[in-house]
Amino acid sequence: MKATVYHAPGDVRVENVPDPVIREATDAIVRVTHACICGSDLWFYRGDAKWEPGWRTGHEWMGIVEDVGRDVTSLEKGDRVFAPFAYSDGTCEFCRHDVQTSCLHGGYWGGADNDGGQGEVVRAPWADGTLVKIPDAAANDESLLRAILPLTDVMGTGHHAALSAGVGPGAVAAVVGDGAVGLCAVLAAKRLGAERIIVFGRHAARLDLARRFGATDVVTERGDEAIARALEMTGGGVPAVLECVGNAGSMAMASGMARPGGTIGFVGVPYGSHDGLNLRRMFSQNIALRGGVAPVRAYAEELLADVLAGALDPSPVFDLDVSLDDVPRGYAAMDGRDAIKVLVRP
Amino acid sequence: MKATVYHAPGDVRVENVPDPVIREATDAIVRVTHACICGSDLWFYRGDAKWEPGWRTGHEWMGIVEDVGRDVTSLEKGDRVFAPFAYSDGTCEFCRHDVQTSCLHGGYWGGADNDGGQGEVVRAPWADGTLVKIPDAAANDESLLRAILPLTDVMGTGHHAALSAGVGPGAVAAVVGDGAVGLCAVLAAKRLGAERIIVFGRHAARLDLARRFGATDVVTERGDEAIARALEMTGGGVPAVLECVGNAGSMAMASGMARPGGTIGFVGVPYGSHDGLNLRRMFSQNIALRGGVAPVRAYAEELLADVLAGALDPSPVFDLDVSLDDVPRGYAAMDGRDAIKVLVRP
Repeated sequence: MKATVYHAPGDVRVENVPDPVIREATDAIVRVTHACICGSDLWFYRGDAKWEPGWRTGHEWMGIVEDVGRDVTSLEKGDRVFAPFAYSDGTCEFCRHDVQTSCLHGGYWGGADNDGGQGEVVRAPWADGTLVKIPDAAANDESLLRAILPLTDVMGTGHHAALSAGVGPGAVAAVVGDGAVGLCAVLAAKRLGAERIIVFGRHAARLDLARRFGATDVVTERGDEAIARALEMTGGGVPAVLECVGNAGSMAMASGMARPGGTIGFVGVPYGSHDGLNLRRMFSQNIALRGGVAPVRAYAEELLADVLAGALDPSPVFDLDVSLDDVPRGYAAMDGRDAIKVLVRP
Repeated sequence: MKATVYHAPGDVRVENVPDPVIREATDAIVRVTHACICGSDLWFYRGDAKWEPGWRTGHEWMGIVEDVGRDVTSLEKGDRVFAPFAYSDGTCEFCRHDVQTSCLHGGYWGGADNDGGQGEVVRAPWADGTLVKIPDAAANDESLLRAILPLTDVMGTGHHAALSAGVGPGAVAAVVGDGAVGLCAVLAAKRLGAERIIVFGRHAARLDLARRFGATDVVTERGDEAIARALEMTGGGVPAVLECVGNAGSMAMASGMARPGGTIGFVGVPYGSHDGLNLRRMFSQNIALRGGVAPVRAYAEELLADVLAGALDPSPVFDLDVSLDDVPRGYAAMDGRDAIKVLVRP
């Protein structure tokens, strides 16, 4: 089969690799119909994450089950499924506590050991625990499928940011970052009842989309100026800050603008964010930090129900579709900020 | 009057200073009967905090009201009161939300602008919001007063650590640090129903007291060895970690031993703890950080009721009494770890 393989910073290629086969009785083999390129893929693409040549790429995908191991009970050949970006057994202590990303037998797609989503077929470990079946009635509705696809990562991650920051009805929230996760965080905050959603970003088209998703205010300043604006706009700080970038600047903004007694929900993969964390302010003002890598499996059913009901549609984050062969062009577009998020059709 | 004045690292002196007088209609003048030396006083005593010669010292104190401003309604001359380590107006948004340490008109005792508790008399701003009246029946019971005194700081701070870390009935908790705050955190965790309390420290007498206070396990290793022990003892990490020191080593331990999905309650004043924070692990394992400078005013009535009922007694943390003139000797004893906590009798 064909799959995307990392070679070096700036160099990913679509190559022939061995067809996956069932290895464990809990596996499924899934033919990928839709996948994405993620902002976090840019960490290795830009050489910021330590990756090895030969590693597979892509952690957001959905597809159709082709085969299942003998212990798989909830799925069968022909089912349409989507996959959270982490696989998990569904039964361990951490899965039962909805921290599936800490599953005792779990892992992430791609890398050295697993198939990636940016390919034709994936062997999915712990299929019963991991894969989420899409009801047959929706299984061939392309516009619904595009709206479901972000549940593999960015929509669940935005939801995790909002939940972690304590967003509820009437909340005043800030979203730091206008990437796909930030945009989904806006949507999630709106869905959870936030009354005011201030988004911090620089990119006009993304900020327009943020407004469509429910942002009430847009701030294009950065750094200390952004903090000053946030403090002024909210009379002393933002109760719920959703940190959706992960670098030093975004975390400095988040920890500088949170309201005394407030909470930062952090979901941006930390590449430098430790340096930006204003721990002394967090201490002196009792600002909490919650979140982390999103257990999107925990949110799958709830968010899927809303998508199927027409109440949630994150699909506008996709502004470029590519074929599998064109995945390298998709990376270049994401890297150049020419695309918010790329949808891959193998 | 006499009061303790900072001169230089290692050099605090008891000197004559102007008698305080009512300045605002919301002030009270209180004659100090009991005060403490705090572990956090050692930051300036050791030269780690930037202090100026002439600043007053002492933020933990209780006493008898001598005079009140004309707007003070809840107190009168002769009342026995204790003071949280921060004063607060009791009416602003943050006071109403029990983050009195972020009071819009609040501040801390001592320093450049306020009287310190390690002196004969204190002018207390916002007396109605700040001072807590001790019922007359208890006002002259010396053993009760010694048990109430830690509510000015360390007992409320330990309670804040436990609450912030989510300790409740049946909890498994770790307390990092065997100073007075760590010991009070043990007492607080026990009081909130923790089933297992693992304390991390090095000092035999303090660890004995931790056991008296409810610690079920004592670990004397530090650093990575302590983390390994904690992970082993709890089968993968501690759900509620109470960080009661504030340096790099203690925060590295706290963030290294917390259980996936768990919470660190941090109350150690951050002097280096930012460097120790393992943010990548917190992200990958969804470990939260909550807490900060304790709003002990919020906990005063609840904890006072338990002390008066005989259900709570943190007074064993005091292992050295000194007169006001002997405050410098008290600092030296704390600095040398010859005393856990010093009680001052002006």
